[in-house]
Amino acid sequence: MAAEENVVIVGKKSVTDYVLATILLFNEGYDEVTIRGQGPNVSKAVDVYNALVNRLQDGVELVGVSIDSIQRGRRLVPIIEIRVRRKIV
Amino acid sequence: MAAEENVVIVGKKSVTDYVLATILLFNEGYDEVTIRGQGPNVSKAVDVYNALVNRLQDGVELVGVSIDSIQRGRRLVPIIEIRVRRKIV
Repeated sequence: MAAEENVVIVGKKSVTDYVLATILLFNEGYDEVTIRGQGPNVSKAVDVYNALVNRLQDGVELVGVSIDSIQRGRRLVPIIEIRVRRKIV
Repeated sequence: MAAEENVVIVGKKSVTDYVLATILLFNEGYDEVTIRGQGPNVSKAVDVYNALVNRLQDGVELVGVSIDSIQRGRRLVPIIEIRVRRKIV
């Protein structure tokens, strides 16, 4: 799915890894990137966002945050999608 | 702080407890309630939101989601604030 190319899915790696993955996507030419986290990684996705802002400062801005859940067997798993935009300063 | 009265702070209790706390605030007359979670409770706050929507269906709508972090000693702790509005159907 081509539209999914600019998505960073937050999992077991370090926060810094996902920050770098996001910056890499910016450098590949994507103006917007979605940072997605599921279940316990919802908190980590917010961590990634904060670390990214810390690193890029005014070079990044928040487009929006969406929250939802998906059915996983019998339970609902929370999902967060944090959309960020690169700003040329 | 009076403005903080309609905030549900998600902690160690069950998701259902926080759903009920939110509904209680609606019943007390607040039209909008903020569900706040810090650190590992960011995911749980999203869980609370999803369980609330599951229970109230069209009776609740999402106003917005904000994410941020606070300094806690030497590390940054992620925070999420999920603002919901009661809808009279």
